[in-house]
Parts: sequence; structure tokens; C-alpha cells
Amino acid sequence: MHRFLDLADFSRDEIIALIDLARHLEQRPEPRALAGRILGLVFFNPSLRTLASFQAGMARLGGTSFVITPGQGTWQLETQLGAVMNGATAEHVREGIPVLASYCDALGIRAFAEGKDLARDLAETQFQAMAEIVDKPLINLESAMNHPCQSLADWKTMDDLAVPRGGKLVLSWVQHPRALPLAVPAATVHMAAMRGMEVVVLRPEGYALPAAIMEKARAAASSAGGSVRESANRAEALAGAHVLYAKEWGSTEHYGNAEADARLRENLSDWCVIPEWFTGADADCKFMHCLPVRRNVAVADAVLDSSRSIVRREAYNRMTAQMAVLHRMLS
Amino acid sequence: MHRFLDLADFSRDEIIALIDLARHLEQRPEPRALAGRILGLVFFNPSLRTLASFQAGMARLGGTSFVITPGQGTWQLETQLGAVMNGATAEHVREGIPVLASYCDALGIRAFAEGKDLARDLAETQFQAMAEIVDKPLINLESAMNHPCQSLADWKTMDDLAVPRGGKLVLSWVQHPRALPLAVPAATVHMAAMRGMEVVVLRPEGYALPAAIMEKARAAASSAGGSVRESANRAEALAGAHVLYAKEWGSTEHYGNAEADARLRENLSDWCVIPEWFTGADADCKFMHCLPVRRNVAVADAVLDSSRSIVRREAYNRMTAQMAVLHRMLS
Amino acid sequence: MHRFLDLADFSRDEIIALIDLARHLEQRPEPRALAGRILGLVFFNPSLRTLASFQAGMARLGGTSFVITPGQGTWQLETQLGAVMNGATAEHVREGIPVLASYCDALGIRAFAEGKDLARDLAETQFQAMAEIVDKPLINLESAMNHPCQSLADWKTMDDLAVPRGGKLVLSWVQHPRALPLAVPAATVHMAAMRGMEVVVLRPEGYALPAAIMEKARAAASSAGGSVRESANRAEALAGAHVLYAKEWGSTEHYGNAEADARLRENLSDWCVIPEWFTGADADCKFMHCLPVRRNVAVADAVLDSSRSIVRREAYNRMTAQMAVLHRMLS
Repeated sequence: MHRFLDLADFSRDEIIALIDLARHLEQRPEPRALAGRILGLVFFNPSLRTLASFQAGMARLGGTSFVITPGQGTWQLETQLGAVMNGATAEHVREGIPVLASYCDALGIRAFAEGKDLARDLAETQFQAMAEIVDKPLINLESAMNHPCQSLADWKTMDDLAVPRGGKLVLSWVQHPRALPLAVPAATVHMAAMRGMEVVVLRPEGYALPAAIMEKARAAASSAGGSVRESANRAEALAGAHVLYAKEWGSTEHYGNAEADARLRENLSDWCVIPEWFTGADADCKFMHCLPVRRNVAVADAVLDSSRSIVRREAYNRMTAQMAVLHRMLS
Repeated sequence: MHRFLDLADFSRDEIIALIDLARHLEQRPEPRALAGRILGLVFFNPSLRTLASFQAGMARLGGTSFVITPGQGTWQLETQLGAVMNGATAEHVREGIPVLASYCDALGIRAFAEGKDLARDLAETQFQAMAEIVDKPLINLESAMNHPCQSLADWKTMDDLAVPRGGKLVLSWVQHPRALPLAVPAATVHMAAMRGMEVVVLRPEGYALPAAIMEKARAAASSAGGSVRESANRAEALAGAHVLYAKEWGSTEHYGNAEADARLRENLSDWCVIPEWFTGADADCKFMHCLPVRRNVAVADAVLDSSRSIVRREAYNRMTAQMAVLHRMLS
Repeated sequence: MHRFLDLADFSRDEIIALIDLARHLEQRPEPRALAGRILGLVFFNPSLRTLASFQAGMARLGGTSFVITPGQGTWQLETQLGAVMNGATAEHVREGIPVLASYCDALGIRAFAEGKDLARDLAETQFQAMAEIVDKPLINLESAMNHPCQSLADWKTMDDLAVPRGGKLVLSWVQHPRALPLAVPAATVHMAAMRGMEVVVLRPEGYALPAAIMEKARAAASSAGGSVRESANRAEALAGAHVLYAKEWGSTEHYGNAEADARLRENLSDWCVIPEWFTGADADCKFMHCLPVRRNVAVADAVLDSSRSIVRREAYNRMTAQMAVLHRMLS
């Protein structure tokens, strides 16, 4: 495997094989598999799970990592092509990224959406500009519209806990003080569809996912035997659900307009998951979230601290799933 | 050993055995003892010695570490239970800490005192809230009222340099531009008492240590054959001393009141250690400090640069002492 | 090798032998050569290449590194001798640096010029004050007036690409929004002279290199059979050149005077390298720069993206050259 940028670059069987490898490495550790191999990790945005789980996972396979955080101990990096660099950025990614790639055996890059122009973010303009100039194995640590490591971990988590592959997953918008990127909702709806699930995107008016994201998910669903639809009706959406996957994201109707988005979410304080949401769901319905999550804004303590919540296992599986990716890429 | 949170959790013989192990590892390195083992280090507060010595010590035993600094490349973490998280913190320790623990074989956490409510800090409310949700071996890298790694290193340093176990140790308050936490003074007075020393806490009015700290130290002294008392009389306190241990801390009379504390310390500029302080002390009296120290505010250059000063050896022993802890915990 | 602080501390043959070792390690990796060895890296200033290449290089030899960035997760360090430390700095380098050295087998320190007093910076006052108190192998990661790791990498890069040892190298001042230190120009002119090249320093009025730097380079040239001179005439300087090495630096006439320097550089916007600069140069003339570089301010995209540009190879050779230094120091 040379690149791990999008689950859609792989067949369903290939993803299942990766999850099998992750489980195999959990049961039979290979502490020297990547001895002498070096992973470079570049974070344009904050991280906790990705930062820790990649370092820990690489070490558990005998390899080493280094971390670069532009603007923090390192120069701020310019991403705009053709820029006249007389401002705050001291180095262009066209130099910085290939140089870092030349020091390592695989590179991971995190670069969130710019959040100004939806078409530009949907095209992954920024991430692609970097991906094009990397000649080493490359991992997407979260880009404008994707988070394949999260999705692989989530898929494995559902398998671990015997959530039916054909079960019902409701991706629900939840409250947050401000607009967040679409990477996780986009990746999740596609992943669940690819897994063969009945996927419902539950969201208030103004927060529909972009057509391109829904179409990509529907294509995956049709080949895997699942389905994808949207709803604004909570009770209807959650009826019989096996998974409630909560996530915060910004209004796509007002993309890049923080004020309009803020006005819209002012009246949406009831979009905080509470135990009552599960009334009509499957008795064993799980609560999922990629973390970080704001307690009592997006989700009530009573849900996060209940046995429904599998958020810690999702986070733990970041490490196990990524170990499979690294093993496939570098061993 | 599953937890290293407080010297008081161990018998005097167990501490001496740990120091013996530290010395053994100095003389006969075991570069593969912790191969494949991973240490997670979480710093809510700045660090130099702890940050470097744990990484170096873990590497000298063949293991690996990763470092997480909330708010710096990582989300700010919320510690308050039941918080409605609509402010600056993006993730709660109830998620963040167990997730990090799930990636590693042992976790270290540094979380200084909140410095507002003395009873709350004495109860280690914040650290305990995290310790309760960690199911892996756990190390206290400095909490509100404790710094067991520093104390273990200091004990070893005194042993290395043949400071008598029944000798006299004076813990003296020294000047600093602002109030600092009580962790090191609390840990030091207890450690020296547990070692069997004659301990005198020398401090100006307003800076007496809390009763709970003195009582804990007195209990340790009575079982080890030492003693603990307070004094405001420098000459009397230092007469015959084998160790002058200098430390800055905030007024306990005005705990959490920065202005009242500032007024109190305005007139205490002579609480900067100079060579004359050693006039009546034992000829071989050592100068100790946990570092960092402000030169010519807390201690004069002439003392720090003299042969009395063993501050660098204390700092070096952070690594050797912690290697014993890690070895006992993980090998 | 106990210290790597300045190419001038070594004979020309010793430098060539280091480059040979670097090439040898590229072709025949030694992944366990430095097993169990620990490198401490202290960055008083930002870094990308140095930070990543030292960690990667150390790992490729089987060793481990830790990184300390004063003021960022770590206390700010005081460098002034005799300071009364009642300000922002919490720890003095006289404690901090020897303590860090005690944890590792070799220490690297980056400390840029203070940029106020030219004589003080030329004397490397700040770096020397730290070097004096380190009793472990020490590496200069860039000091006020030197950057030996960069120069070693640049020399190897010219050898790799068959730039004649007696060829012509033009070190040209280029534009930047503000004054930068003299470390790289000083190191480069000396390195090229030591390699035996015909060296021309091309710069506008006000930007002549200090006499001490030119004299040191001339001494190296005379023993290696090369030459060193200055020029303000671009066409004349670049005629027949084999290398154009671009670098930004501050006015030495107005050292430490940001306003005077800013007025001077206001009219120097044509000191941005464009393809036309190469008109009279050797057909195969290379473009070099140590990076980071501001595109379209110091150098045009058309030059950086052309086949003349070997800046990425220079950066890659930071790792290979430093691996030779580490190997010589620690194996």
C-alpha cells in the first residue's frame, strides 16, 4: 500500500482485510516488524488521538516517529501557489513537505478545511497540492473532507462489538459553539455505507451534507447493499437504530459565513444527545463520537458515561487500525 | 508496582530498595529491559527535567515515550466534573486521559495545584479525578501537593553524597516574584522525615506549611526516628545543618490571594540564600534546590556556583531514580 | 570527535572524510550503530530541517532523541551571566544546559544571534557561555555566526552533483522583509573557500560581510587554493558561476538597527533571484539556498521550480551529513 488517503480508494474486501490484520496484530504483536522505519507526522492543526496513537502504534511495531507542528517550534508554512511571501509564512509547503518526506519512510499530514470556499474544500485543493509533491508513502491524518484513519477505527469498533454490518446507523448533527469541518461526517457516512449499513443523516435545516458527499456515500451503499438518506425527524430517524453517531459540523448553506451559521445554531440547543433520544432505538443501540467532544453541549454526561457509549473503544482502535495501515505500508 | 503517586504509599525499606535498584541500573545498564514498552507523558504545566529525564530514562531502558501537552498542539482539556463545555476547553479529561492510557503501558501526569482553594488542593481533587479513570500504571509527575519523583531523586542524592540519614535538613522558604505551589515543600519535608532526618521548616510569618502537611511529615518522622518542626529564626534553624534545601512557595495564610501574598513578600528580599547563611551550619553543609531556580532572587550566584551546591546532581538523579520506578513498573 | 561547532576546527581532509562516511552510511545503512545512545536537542529558535533531520538521522542509526524548546512547554532560559532573575526567565542556562547534558550522550544547541552588538555576536558570546559548561559531545545547530551542519550538507551536495571543487560560487544577498542573522552567509563563504572554490560575495551597499568573517574565509581559501572577494556588480560576479547561493542577511553597517536596515532594503526589491540572473553563468549553474526561503521575495518560483534548484537535495543532505557526525561522535 503506497497511500492511505480515502477508504474509497480500496475495495470493501481490502478494508475488511486491513481490519483483520489490525486484529491479528492485537493478538500477536510484532514488536520488530518496522524496526529502522521512520514515520514523519505533520500537524497543521491540533491533535490528541492522532498524535499519540500514531507514535504509540509505530513504536509498538518497532519503528520511530518525529512530529512537526508548523508555527510551533517550526516556521509557519505557506500553502498558496504563486504567493509573494512577504507576510507571516516563512516557508512554502513546496519546499517543506518534500524535504520532510526525504527524511522518512512514510509521511502523515493533517490539514483541516480552509472553511471559506466549499468547492475548493470538496476538491481537497490544499491536501492534494501537498500530496502531489510527496514521493513517499502518505497517510491522510484528516483533510478538508476526509478522515480515513477515524473511519477504519470506527468500522473495526463496530465489528469488535458485533454491530450488524447491515444494521442502522444514524449520523446526527449535534450542537457546538461554532462551525466545525465536514471531514468526519463525510468520512463516516461513506464508511457506514461501504460497510453495508442503512445510513440516515439526521440534521436540522441548513445543515444538509453537500450533494457530492451524499452521492459518494450512495455509490458505496449501492455496491455494498446498504442505503443512505437524510432526515430532520429525530424519532423517525432513530427508530430501531443500532448506532447513533453524533458529530458537530458547520452549516453547508452558509459555508464560511460564521455569523449566519451562529444565528442558525442559536436555536438548536436541543441538539445535545440525552438518554431520551434512545427511546425508540434498538435496545442495544451504541453511542459513537470521534472525539474531542464537548460534554453537556453536544452530548450529556449521562450518555457519555453510560454503557451505550463506545467512544473510548473507537479512540483505542485508532491505534490498532493505524498499526495495520503502517504494517501494510512499511513492512 | 502499579502506581507511583506518593512516597507515603511505600515503606521506608521499599524506598531504599528502589534507590538501590537505581544505583544498580547506573552501574549495570539494561538497555533492552523495557523494549517494546511505551510511556505516555501528559504535561498540563511546563517542564524541563521531568520532560527530558523521563524520555531519556525510558530510552536508556529500551522503551519509547510520547509527550502530550494540552493546549499546545493538542486541545485544552477540561477537568471540572459536570461542566457545560461551551468555553475554551474542547475535550474533557474523562475522555482524554483514559484514551491516552489505552495507547501506552504506563502513563505519567503533571497537573499543578489550581491555587485557589487550599482544602481542594490538599485533597488532590484534580489529580485524583484523573487517577481514578486510569487503568494502567500511573506516575505522578507533580501534582498539587506532591512530587514523588523529585523526592526519590533527592533522597538518592543525599545517599550518594553520604549526607547522614539522621542528619539535619533545613527546608527554607526563599524569595520569588510570585506565589508558587506547595508540591515540592510538602514532598520534601515528608521525604526527609521518612529518611529519618531532623527536619526544620524555616519560613517567615505567613508562610507556615498547612497543618495536614506537617502532620503527615511528623507521622513519617516518628516511625523513622526523626523529627519535624518549624522556625522563623534563621541562625537557630541552620545551626549544625547538613543540608539547606531552598524552595519558593506561596503564603498559606493568603492562599489564592495573589495581592495579599505580593504585599507580604515585598519585605522579604533578604530571603535570598547567600554564603553567610552557612556560617553556623556543618562545615560540609550542602545546598539543594529542585530547580528551576531564579538566580540572585532566590539564591545568589556565589552559592549556586560553589561546591556546596548539589542541584545538578539532584537533577541528574531524576533520571536514575525514575529509571528504577519504570523498571519496577514495566519490566 | 568530541565537538562539531565549526568546520574551521577540522582539516580539509577531515571534512572530506566525514563526507565520505556520510556517503558510506547512505549506501550501507548501520541501523544499530548507535543503539542505546541518546541525543538531546535544544532549540532556542524555530527549526524544521534541523529538528526533523537530527531525529530521523539518529533513529536511522538506532539511537533516540529528545527535544527541548525553551519557552514552549519548558521554562524560558536566561543566558545573561549575573542576571537578577526577577523577570520572564525562570531558569538559567547554567543550570538548564548541564542538567540536559547529564541525561544524554550528545547535546545539540541552536541559539541564533542576539542581533544587537556585532562584536558580541562575532565572539559567539552566548553560545560559548553554554559550550563551556557542557561536558558531553556537543553539536552546533546554528549559532550567532555559524551553521556547520548546513555547510557540511552543502559541501556534500556539491560533491554529489559534481560541482567542481575549484569552481566559482557566488554567495548573493537576497531580499527579505527584515534583517536576518549572518550565520549561514558566514558559514557558507568559509565552507566554499575551504573547499577550494573561487568565492564572490555579491551584495548591495551596506551589506558587506564583517571583516572578521571575510578574513577567516580568506585564510581557508589560501590554504585550499581558492579565493574570496566581494562585489556589488551582479553581471560581473555571476559570469561563469557554477553555483549561485542565495541568502538573506541584515545590514552589517546598521547592525541591530531595524529601522535603518528597513530603509536600506526598501529600494532593493530587485534582489529577488529570477531566471535572467543566470544569463552569463555556466550553463549548468546550480541554485542553492539553505531554506526556509520566501518565494517571490528572495527567489522567484521560476528558479525554485527549475532543474537548476538543488535546495531539496541540500536539505536531504542535512540528514546524511549529520549522520556521519553522530556516527563519528557516538559509535
